[in-house]
Parts: sequence; C-alpha cells; structure tokens
Amino acid sequence: MLNNNLTELLKVEYPIIQAPMAGGVTTSNLVAEVSNAGCLGMIGAGYMTPIQMGAQIKEIKELTSNPFGVNLFVPNEFNVTENEVKTANRSLNPIRQQLNLQPKDSFEIPSLNDIFETFIEQIKVVIEEKVPICSFTFGIPSKEMIVELKQSNIILIGTATTVREAIENEKAGMDIVVVQGSEAGGHRGNFINKPTESLIGLMSLIPQVVDNVRIPVVAAGGIMDGRGLNASLCLGAQGVQMGTAFLTCFESGAHKVHKEAILNASEDQTVLTRSFSGKWARGLENKFILEMQKHEQLLPDFPIQNTLTQDIRKTSSAENNQDYMSLWSGQSPRLAQCQTVELLIKDIIAGAKK
Amino acid sequence: MLNNNLTELLKVEYPIIQAPMAGGVTTSNLVAEVSNAGCLGMIGAGYMTPIQMGAQIKEIKELTSNPFGVNLFVPNEFNVTENEVKTANRSLNPIRQQLNLQPKDSFEIPSLNDIFETFIEQIKVVIEEKVPICSFTFGIPSKEMIVELKQSNIILIGTATTVREAIENEKAGMDIVVVQGSEAGGHRGNFINKPTESLIGLMSLIPQVVDNVRIPVVAAGGIMDGRGLNASLCLGAQGVQMGTAFLTCFESGAHKVHKEAILNASEDQTVLTRSFSGKWARGLENKFILEMQKHEQLLPDFPIQNTLTQDIRKTSSAENNQDYMSLWSGQSPRLAQCQTVELLIKDIIAGAKK
Repeated sequence: MLNNNLTELLKVEYPIIQAPMAGGVTTSNLVAEVSNAGCLGMIGAGYMTPIQMGAQIKEIKELTSNPFGVNLFVPNEFNVTENEVKTANRSLNPIRQQLNLQPKDSFEIPSLNDIFETFIEQIKVVIEEKVPICSFTFGIPSKEMIVELKQSNIILIGTATTVREAIENEKAGMDIVVVQGSEAGGHRGNFINKPTESLIGLMSLIPQVVDNVRIPVVAAGGIMDGRGLNASLCLGAQGVQMGTAFLTCFESGAHKVHKEAILNASEDQTVLTRSFSGKWARGLENKFILEMQKHEQLLPDFPIQNTLTQDIRKTSSAENNQDYMSLWSGQSPRLAQCQTVELLIKDIIAGAKK
Repeated sequence: MLNNNLTELLKVEYPIIQAPMAGGVTTSNLVAEVSNAGCLGMIGAGYMTPIQMGAQIKEIKELTSNPFGVNLFVPNEFNVTENEVKTANRSLNPIRQQLNLQPKDSFEIPSLNDIFETFIEQIKVVIEEKVPICSFTFGIPSKEMIVELKQSNIILIGTATTVREAIENEKAGMDIVVVQGSEAGGHRGNFINKPTESLIGLMSLIPQVVDNVRIPVVAAGGIMDGRGLNASLCLGAQGVQMGTAFLTCFESGAHKVHKEAILNASEDQTVLTRSFSGKWARGLENKFILEMQKHEQLLPDFPIQNTLTQDIRKTSSAENNQDYMSLWSGQSPRLAQCQTVELLIKDIIAGAKK
C-alpha cells in the first residue's frame, strides 16, 4: 500500500517528502536523516546563493547515498515604489526601536534581472551536482529550463494550491505535483489564483486535483502522522509532504524558540500574514503580526518586504525573543513532537500500517 | 469498518449524517430518503417556527420509520443599535433599487428574549414528538435543557470548529460532536473562538479533536464521496456530515439556480462572507457578496442582518437571479452531482468499501 508510482519515481521506500522549509531549517543532517530513513529529504534553497547550495549538496552526499532533492523559488514579478519602501520602513521603525536597531528610511531595490540570474545559477548547480529531484514553489520555471532539467534526468515537482494550478504544472511537464492545502504552514504557493481563492482544505483539494491530473499528487498541509498519511492516500494522493512535523525534530535547524512555540501551541493560534515577507504565509500569531496588521495590505511585495524585515527577525532570533520572529507553523501544532527524524518516521509508518 | 459507536448511538446502518441545512433545503422527502437509505436525515429547523417544525416532523414520520434528527440554532447575544440598522439599510438600498424593491430605513429589532422563547418552544416540540436525535449549532444549550432532553432519551449532537469548542461540547454532556472544518459551506459554527481562529482544515482538525475528547467525532466540510468518508475515518472520526453533496440531490429543496451554480463551480470560487446574515458563512462568490464587501465589517450581527436581507434574497430567488441569493457551498463543488439521495448514498458506500 505504501509503494506506488510516486515511490518508484522518487526511488524511496516510503511516500513521504520532508517539506523544503527555507531559512535554515533544512540542515544537512535533517535532509540526510530523512533520506536515510527511506523518505525524501529536501533542501529549502529558496534563499541560498548558488555557492551555499552547492556546498550543502556536497555535504549531504557525504551523509547519505539515498536520493534527496532541492527546492527553488521561481522568481515573481514585483511592483514596488520608493515611496512604498518608505512607508513600510515607517511602520517597521517602532519595532526596530524596541530592538535597539537603527531606524531605516531608504533601501536599494533589487532588480528582478539579478534575481533571475541567481535562479539560473541555482538550476545550473542542481544539474552539475546531479541532484535527482528538484521542486519549485511560487510558479513554474520556463520551458527551456524544464527541458534542460529533464535532459539531465532530474525528476521535477511543482507546487499548486488549486486544481487550475495543478493542471498548469502537469501541462508544463512536472512529473509530480504537491498540493498545498489551507492547513499548511509557511508561505502560500499560489501563483495563478489570488491568495483568497487558494485556501482550500486538503479534504476538498486532494480529490478535486486527483480527478483532474494524471501525474502523482502529493498532499501537503497539517499532516503529522500515520493518520494523515492514510487519509491522504484515501483521498487519492500518492504521498505526503510534511513540514511542521520535521521542523520540531532534533535535527532541524529551526530556532529552539520556534520549536518550543510550536510544541506549546494549539490549532487555533496560527494566522495568515504577509507582514514578514510580502507574501501570505501561515504562522503562530505573535507581537510582530499583531502590530503590523493595520499596515499589512500596504506593504511591498515579496521579496522586498522580506529583505526589509531581515534585521528585525535576525535580532529577535539572536535574543531568543519570539515576539518578532516568523514562527511558521501548519494548523496541527498539537501533533508536533520533539524527537529524532528516525523515530518520527518510524511512528508515521507504524501509524499508517495500523 | 462502517459500524462503530456512532452508528450504534444513532441506530443507523452507515455513519453518514445529512447536514441540517436551514432555509428550506431539508424537505421532508430529502430527510426521509436519507434515513430510508440507512443514514441520518436531519431537519434544518434553525429558522422554523415551532409549529412548522412540528408539522414537518409529523410529515417525515409518515415517510420513514428510521431515525432522523432536528437541528436547532442556539440563540446568541447580539449587539445592535438603530444607527447600525440605518447604515446597513443604506448599503442595501441600492441593491433593493436594482430589484425594484422599496428602500428601507428603520426596522424593529427583535428581542433576544423572544428568540429564546422560540428556542424553548422548539425544544418542547422535539421532546413531545420524541425525535430521537437533536443537534445544535452556534453554541451549547443550557444545563437544564440538556438534562430535560436526556431524560427523554434524545441523543444530542454538538457542533465545534476547534478543539476547545469540542471539549466544551463534551463537558456539557453532548453524546456526539460534529467538527466543522474550514472547507464547510454555509454558516460557521464557531461559538467560543473568533471566526479567524476557527478556520481549521479537516486534515488538522479531526486528529487534534479526536486526541482530546472521548465522544464520537463526526467530520463535516468538503466531504462528498467514499474517499472523504474513508479519509475521515482514517483521521479518527467515526462518521461524516455532508451538506453540499445532499444539497444538489433531486430531493433537496434548494433553488434550482443554487443547485446549478454549485454544479458549475470550481473549488476556488467560494468565499467567506457575513453580508447575508451577519454571521460568517461560506458560499459561491456573487454580485451581492462583491457589492457588500466594503460594508462587511460594519453590518449588524446575526440574526439582524439576516432579517434585513430577507426581501433581497426572496425577490432574487423568485426571479431566478443568482446575483443576490446566498449560494452556500463547501469547497468541493467539482464533486457535486445531480442525482437521487439513494444513488448518492450507494455511490458513497461503494467508494468507501473499495
């Protein structure tokens, strides 16, 4: 029952993908332990330079001979004016003051071209290093890129939040599609549908996507144990992608304050916010989210707002202060446990086989 | 596998409850056909007078000898000023004009006392008519009411949208709790948690509730077929409550325009709105929702706003105009079918046994 097209494509024992959480969560140790346990470890490389990425890929190869993957952010167009940046800084400065940080006024807006260049370099690294699996969030790469990756026999995974987005992934040649339910923690992966249209619960999303695509569907969002894996398979998915469940593992690089916040949270404490990055994302409600709520609609797009809040998040982390950190979490924090990756996966499989 | 504590308590063959959709959807024929097919038919009696309720109960008894149930709205406190009513009418009057309806200005605000009196009368009818099952939405009835209903051997079902609300239902003595996921169509059942805290997808909600209560849990929201039933059972629920799936059946009293709208909709077309009734509810986006969006936060509470929009909804329905009707729907409209109750239930069971 746990072996299917998905496990064959990925060459793994179990149909479980560790979600590629960006921002330091996916340590080499985490990724390798997941792959060593028969699941698919993934590097969340969205914010990495090509050099950092290459180094981590090499490191993981030392730790596992099993397949693992890399996730990249497809660059999105963004609109931003200097005035918007000024306004955003004006709303962030009171928080900077509380953290004894320098107030900011202006900011050098990066060019979309430069971001694209980095993306192309990242893909080059994936190909050069022969990483067997590459997944994408926030969109679909260009035809040329897909052709190039496929010529290198790299298995491609797309991300979708609606049926329409799943169909587009299939059309573009993705081998697998991850469907992100409204339960999911972290950034929303919608790229065609508006954020408000794309908050579909997995109970609804999985069967409707499965009925409309032929490629294997992987369910993501709130899945934490064997019960969630079994339920996803019942609904027609061939596997699951789990983030929060791995985030609180020993091997994860998430801040201990972040882990503890999840371990102490209940299902009604996550909210959607765009205040941290300019993109909607789900995390535990904290002081930052509450204080920024009134400015939320006016903040600049991703990745501008993300760069603007970097000093705040960094300092808050360094001071073990959860008030201004991004505490990404799915809607099932009550099911989170603090344990090793090996034990977590054993538990999931034992629960699924019941 | 389909027989458990829930089916024993309800004395039904299959662990499927037809959601008690208020406002004319649950015809006697619909309720009786569901019960005759081995599931639990439910009267959505929230908006009914005690006399209407009694009449329908008698009618259903003629059509089935199997158990069926009644759902009641627990009255909630509401705050409303004459000024708020004036403002609401001012935003509704342009719509009334489009429908050639008289503009409105004032409105006699009903007393909470009167609403409570009706609720007490409704409960009396349930007891007198020996209706075997009674479910509640929007809260938990008083201790005295619960004692009285239990003395009459009536099985009580509560509604919850979070773990906390489920625990309160269990503490109060409910025999069963329906957990309403964010996928669900129609009114949100939250009564302790804020609406924003209570939009938990079933993949997250079911296992977290199941881990925290001992009474049988029934899953509601986006479940349309055997896949959803199986998935809910995997997650620890003992059964499902299905609304939209029954709404489009031949026997349902929903307006044909409403049925057609669902049958033609996709999963990304539902939104949450409080413009129709003053309570948040999920339905297909239409002109009314879009036009009222900017006033949404200022509208009076349920049931005031519901009464204010009555003329608009009625006229829109009479003219087969879907622009101003409340087109309640869960997040799985692509799975909706136009068929008989008997066939729908056969399909669900066949799908679940696969």
